[in-house]
Amino acid sequence: MFKLNENYLKLPGSYLFSTIGKKVNAYSAAHPDKKVIRLGIGDVTQPLAPVIIEALHKAVDEMGHAETFHGYAPDLGYEFLRNAIAENDYKARDCSISADEIFVSDGAKCDSANIQEIFSLDNKIAVCDPVYPVYVDSNVMAGRTGTYDETTETWSDVIYMPCLEENGFAPKLPEKTPDLIYLCFPNNPTGAVLKKEQLQEWVDYANKVGAVILYDAAYEAYISEEDVPHSIYECQGAQTCAIELRSFSKNAGFTGVRLGFTVVPRELKCQGVSLHSLWARRHGTKYNGAPYIVQRAGEAVYSEAGKAQLKEQVAYYMKNARYILEGLKSAGYTVSGGVNAPYIWLKAPKGMTSWEFFDCLLEKANVVGTPGSGFGPSGETYFRLTGFGSYENTVEAVERIKALQL
Amino acid sequence: MFKLNENYLKLPGSYLFSTIGKKVNAYSAAHPDKKVIRLGIGDVTQPLAPVIIEALHKAVDEMGHAETFHGYAPDLGYEFLRNAIAENDYKARDCSISADEIFVSDGAKCDSANIQEIFSLDNKIAVCDPVYPVYVDSNVMAGRTGTYDETTETWSDVIYMPCLEENGFAPKLPEKTPDLIYLCFPNNPTGAVLKKEQLQEWVDYANKVGAVILYDAAYEAYISEEDVPHSIYECQGAQTCAIELRSFSKNAGFTGVRLGFTVVPRELKCQGVSLHSLWARRHGTKYNGAPYIVQRAGEAVYSEAGKAQLKEQVAYYMKNARYILEGLKSAGYTVSGGVNAPYIWLKAPKGMTSWEFFDCLLEKANVVGTPGSGFGPSGETYFRLTGFGSYENTVEAVERIKALQL
Repeated sequence: MFKLNENYLKLPGSYLFSTIGKKVNAYSAAHPDKKVIRLGIGDVTQPLAPVIIEALHKAVDEMGHAETFHGYAPDLGYEFLRNAIAENDYKARDCSISADEIFVSDGAKCDSANIQEIFSLDNKIAVCDPVYPVYVDSNVMAGRTGTYDETTETWSDVIYMPCLEENGFAPKLPEKTPDLIYLCFPNNPTGAVLKKEQLQEWVDYANKVGAVILYDAAYEAYISEEDVPHSIYECQGAQTCAIELRSFSKNAGFTGVRLGFTVVPRELKCQGVSLHSLWARRHGTKYNGAPYIVQRAGEAVYSEAGKAQLKEQVAYYMKNARYILEGLKSAGYTVSGGVNAPYIWLKAPKGMTSWEFFDCLLEKANVVGTPGSGFGPSGETYFRLTGFGSYENTVEAVERIKALQL
Repeated sequence: MFKLNENYLKLPGSYLFSTIGKKVNAYSAAHPDKKVIRLGIGDVTQPLAPVIIEALHKAVDEMGHAETFHGYAPDLGYEFLRNAIAENDYKARDCSISADEIFVSDGAKCDSANIQEIFSLDNKIAVCDPVYPVYVDSNVMAGRTGTYDETTETWSDVIYMPCLEENGFAPKLPEKTPDLIYLCFPNNPTGAVLKKEQLQEWVDYANKVGAVILYDAAYEAYISEEDVPHSIYECQGAQTCAIELRSFSKNAGFTGVRLGFTVVPRELKCQGVSLHSLWARRHGTKYNGAPYIVQRAGEAVYSEAGKAQLKEQVAYYMKNARYILEGLKSAGYTVSGGVNAPYIWLKAPKGMTSWEFFDCLLEKANVVGTPGSGFGPSGETYFRLTGFGSYENTVEAVERIKALQL
């Protein structure tokens, strides 16, 4: 008789954003006259930039003729895209990452969920708290997290690194030694960043204790300040301790197009075995490449026209983020983020829990945000809003929240 | 100090098709004047059908305007596609599968590699021998297969079901009881099929012993005979014991477009827990949906024009398959397959091993096929050719093989 992977049954509740989706759908069904504004899930709303649309049409046309048709993609992704990434995201920032250390994929969510697979089940993970739920949940499914304590909402075998207001929402080096350290900066959900010297400390620490940093840089396009690193490979020694995860979802609006990549430097080894070879084996065996047309769209992101158009798109969302940040600040809310990231992290007013504030905003202002507690215990009483709406909706949402006079 | 997933290190050699690719590239580099014809890897060569191209362009245009832009897709896939699948692939064949039992993905390779994840590591798998390498390799990576015996090229904890000439390349029910049974019909690599009554035996067996059948029906569009089932759900009782994996790669030429789906019936349960809920949780946590434009292309496959155009495309490849089958038969080869599948399975001549014949064809005829031994020990001395080339190349390849007079 077959048996289930019982680790799945340990997962509390459903995936955060599925729960939010269900609550919002139920509210909308009951109140069809209300205009609900979604500033919750980090989905973009602006159309793809003209240069991307053009690249997609061109690639579609190629697929319609035998001479230019493309079947299975190369295991690691097309060279035209990997070269563009190596040149623009790394060489231009003096990071020595070569094209063959870049693995193209269908997005950072899959990669950040799958990357744990190449490590031993004995390895201990450390995560920021609050944190993007995928890091922990994928490790729960694999059986790496021990038992769940419903009272503290924590797993026995996970090292939590609280990111609190008093430390600028940056984690401290953990007391227990982890094997795998998940870091995401600019941070989801808090919008906080690490300065270069702060990130260098993490790289030095990882090299010292023999840990691997899984560095999620999905929001790097939103960095506006000078001394904030866009890639972990800007730090000395990161090649021997860090894997970087990147996405086209937020810098180019590809949430519905699906494209990302992971960098595994060849120097990153465990007892002489390179992690690059393991990830390559996984890609070759369990994945079949991102669509050709999508990889061509990714290439267009790095064209001169692409860079110009996407700079404008990012600026549009950051204008929203600033509007939320300043609007809520002026209304007396405790807010942070929104400067190097599209996320605004705010304290729920009047001692409300995260979900109480979620329900309050949904029902009284018809605004959807994300409850901070969904990102981990230290997120309780916090709330995440995003700059990814339209400007008009963002302004209206802020006005509605202000009008509640909480 | 972090550690690797040591199961990866147990994998012998590299992924079959990566090895072939490297050999062919090395030969081509050394002999740039030779025209190599690839009838090895199952990649298609015909361009996307006009109706698909049209659907892609239309969807790309939608992505360029805020009102019709699509961000993150619904977890299980868009309803328009799931409804089309339910209607055409299931309802039309009297299979009671509903749209919400269908999970849209980026292809059957990923799904067939990932599906093992929702089962216990204690579960014992049974595979046909020869077999598509992904089923076994993904279980090796998970740690479900025991130790590898280099002499027999088998894993200690895998139940192999030899598919030999004397039983028409159909497996017999295994002597040891498995928990998970991988079946692929029409078969890759042999091109063999199971008639409906034969498949019904497997369904009855699985229900009796409490096993799950993981049924890969990626080649169903190539079925030409009447009593061969297109879906396992044509058999009574399959809803309580079978998961079906489907692909758009071969029926619509989507190898470079990436689209597939998996059916997990709600009635399929283990001690009251539905596998549907586990797979839904995996989709929600570790996957972010197939691109909107690709799902629209998938929808077009089911339009009247789509059906007509793709029927022609399948007929084109099957004409190639017949040409290979008959050509090699007339040259004295022992061949099978090619009637309900695009694959031709042939015996290497003159007592050659599979890889000896591979090298011989590559070097003397500049034709690339796939060594049968790459699919498992019972594939040794066999060889796979496919009908997926162009007609002109197929004819030329057959003439070259004939000219060798082996």
